[in-house]
Amino acid sequence: MSAALEDRAAFLEWFDERRAANTYRVTPVPLDALDGWHFDPGTGNLGHRSGGFFTVEGIEASLGEDVGSWTQPIIIQDEIGILGILVKRFGGTPYFLMQAKMEPGNVNTLQLSPTVQATRSNYTRVHRGSAVPYLEYFVDPRQGRRVFDSLQSEQGSWFLAKRNRNMIVEIPEDAEVPAHDSFRWVSQELLKDLLRIDNVVNMDSRTVLSGLPFLHGEQSGTGDEPHTKAEILSWFTEARSNHVLERRRIPLNQVKGWSRGPERIEHERGAFFTVLGVEVEASSREVARWSQPLLAPVDRGVVAFLARRPASDADWQVLVHAQSEAGTSDVVEMSPTVNCVPANYTHLPAQQRPPFLDQVLSAPASRIHFDTVLSEEGGRFHHAENRYLLVEVGDDFPAAGLPDDYIWMTRRQLTGFVRYGNHVNVVARSLLACLMD
Amino acid sequence: MSAALEDRAAFLEWFDERRAANTYRVTPVPLDALDGWHFDPGTGNLGHRSGGFFTVEGIEASLGEDVGSWTQPIIIQDEIGILGILVKRFGGTPYFLMQAKMEPGNVNTLQLSPTVQATRSNYTRVHRGSAVPYLEYFVDPRQGRRVFDSLQSEQGSWFLAKRNRNMIVEIPEDAEVPAHDSFRWVSQELLKDLLRIDNVVNMDSRTVLSGLPFLHGEQSGTGDEPHTKAEILSWFTEARSNHVLERRRIPLNQVKGWSRGPERIEHERGAFFTVLGVEVEASSREVARWSQPLLAPVDRGVVAFLARRPASDADWQVLVHAQSEAGTSDVVEMSPTVNCVPANYTHLPAQQRPPFLDQVLSAPASRIHFDTVLSEEGGRFHHAENRYLLVEVGDDFPAAGLPDDYIWMTRRQLTGFVRYGNHVNVVARSLLACLMD
Repeated sequence: MSAALEDRAAFLEWFDERRAANTYRVTPVPLDALDGWHFDPGTGNLGHRSGGFFTVEGIEASLGEDVGSWTQPIIIQDEIGILGILVKRFGGTPYFLMQAKMEPGNVNTLQLSPTVQATRSNYTRVHRGSAVPYLEYFVDPRQGRRVFDSLQSEQGSWFLAKRNRNMIVEIPEDAEVPAHDSFRWVSQELLKDLLRIDNVVNMDSRTVLSGLPFLHGEQSGTGDEPHTKAEILSWFTEARSNHVLERRRIPLNQVKGWSRGPERIEHERGAFFTVLGVEVEASSREVARWSQPLLAPVDRGVVAFLARRPASDADWQVLVHAQSEAGTSDVVEMSPTVNCVPANYTHLPAQQRPPFLDQVLSAPASRIHFDTVLSEEGGRFHHAENRYLLVEVGDDFPAAGLPDDYIWMTRRQLTGFVRYGNHVNVVARSLLACLMD
Repeated sequence: MSAALEDRAAFLEWFDERRAANTYRVTPVPLDALDGWHFDPGTGNLGHRSGGFFTVEGIEASLGEDVGSWTQPIIIQDEIGILGILVKRFGGTPYFLMQAKMEPGNVNTLQLSPTVQATRSNYTRVHRGSAVPYLEYFVDPRQGRRVFDSLQSEQGSWFLAKRNRNMIVEIPEDAEVPAHDSFRWVSQELLKDLLRIDNVVNMDSRTVLSGLPFLHGEQSGTGDEPHTKAEILSWFTEARSNHVLERRRIPLNQVKGWSRGPERIEHERGAFFTVLGVEVEASSREVARWSQPLLAPVDRGVVAFLARRPASDADWQVLVHAQSEAGTSDVVEMSPTVNCVPANYTHLPAQQRPPFLDQVLSAPASRIHFDTVLSEEGGRFHHAENRYLLVEVGDDFPAAGLPDDYIWMTRRQLTGFVRYGNHVNVVARSLLACLMD
């Protein structure tokens, strides 16, 4: 067995042990009977009695005259949490302190999380749980080198302008940092390997890992980019200027086409997502027992880059889409070529399906360079899976005539924009992490 | 007379001719009698009958528990305008197509504007004026090379999250582009010179010119920066995460401490600004006659960088402040060391005056490297002057112990952040333009 395979086997053994070491029970509960949560009689908004955590409210959004407007439920969570990964070199090689963490909406219950994954309520102790381990490396007074530190958006279809602070902090090689129970130092090579297994590395880890290239220094151009940085920024500015995203918050009971029964909130046609309630018991979490709503998408999504490269050792060029979602904080963000739940489009004629979806789904295996099912944040979403893909385009892919909202750029260029926040959306960052060197 | 002095003399002669070639009359009119404008009976908001242009409404803002909350009038203008400068080389040297343009609030009536300075109403002809010259270079179909193209914020104390698209477009040396009446090709050397004369180069030009270094290629580090880019971004992310800026729009008639008479809107204590009305007649503008409100600050502001440099031929290091204003779109932006109207603080004890203001105002002439009075946008503001300064710190300036919201960075690093929008505020961009090489 190679060293890499041994590493992986040892990790998976440890991961199974962690799963066995604790007990978790997630039980569906009707929203009306969810302990601590209630629907406001005036607005119909779903919230926690403490006023903390998050609420489910309504939003009316419009993408301009062509698309028209719609209303939908959306999660409101204004506070900024911390997603932080601690890095330390062992014998010169960087290792990442990762955590086997349970979230109620997770496929397989346990997934691999960042060192710290904490809402502000979490770490300021609103729910009176135990202290967050390793938090001291991510808040003042500063210890270590901040390699990557930026505010990043989350799912725009489900959250209104939600963002978290994404951080990678490197501590000196001689620092003594023991890995507590449920924590483990993992190499970049192993992380890359684990990202190819379904539902192991969670969304919070993936978004932070999109900033991992900055651990290795500034990213300069390679000279073979299809567009300069100035051209890409101009394309992005044009999309932000010319697109319309108007929206306003509305009471949940004014959302049209959705029903709220005692059990759940759901769409009339069974499309998009439902909001359901769960009661959670865990022997390993800060609070041993709690109840909460979760947003459950009706089907698996597809998140894919169409890609090409001038030579097999060159950087991938990916086709990036300037996409608006109801909750996008600034009109558009850079998104993968395809980012949708195909089931939501089955009732529409072919020409109204998302561009390039058919090319992605019909690609032969020889052109698929990455293909893993990964889930989105299990603390808010129930079994929200996306199939993440990198699909190389065929020789017959047209060299010109792209729709205005699409542009080719190198993976390295896209990574460069991740630093600035509000540029690259959460699924694009996830996919970048999957494609790490 | 040197070539530079000749250039300047010829320019100023042309500029005087332009002023003489047209007639302008700006007459104060009570707000109640302002043609086409009215106060909404329900909200007290001031707006145009067409629903276009802009409105004056109220805002309630809070910077957290320490500072408390306040209400104030604020200008709402959601549409994104274009500020664009056309560049062309003559004999290899870049020249900028600038415009002698009248705005009703301008000190000296005429100031030097970008090639295109147009609100969306302007160029989509809401007010039925004549077409905007050279607009075709800044909208599709694209002509020329887009050197700089980003959405940039404007005055956060007076506008709610207003932004304009700032563009520099270079056209080929062999392109035939005649300078119409009121337009003139100006070299970078002359622009730099004109920025040292009070009230000649307007705000719209200055913000666009902050992106001028990108005409000369990518800006890489020089190796003698006091902080890395990663450190600065982390400082900025921390300021955005830890500061609080909560606000909500309120009807103008719910703003406390301000009065609306038939003549004007003003603060009870005579502080901050007034909103007044003017009637304008011009022989040179798209519309020959119109009426509008203007926001008039009560006194001149001070906008200053404290600066230092390791050697006299090294890049300036400037002390940057992460500052919140009521209308800042994303909590804080990078601002000069000092950005305030001192008159608003005269009633406060010394320790409540803005940090570093006294150091700026008491600096000896030998440490003042730039000192010019320039005005803010004359289309919205009446005689809104700021004294822009670059003040070198003395040897006694403490090397450590800065307040958390301040950081040293090189002028080149600050320019690098201008590209991304929502990072560097309008007065910092103005001052960067003043310090151009």
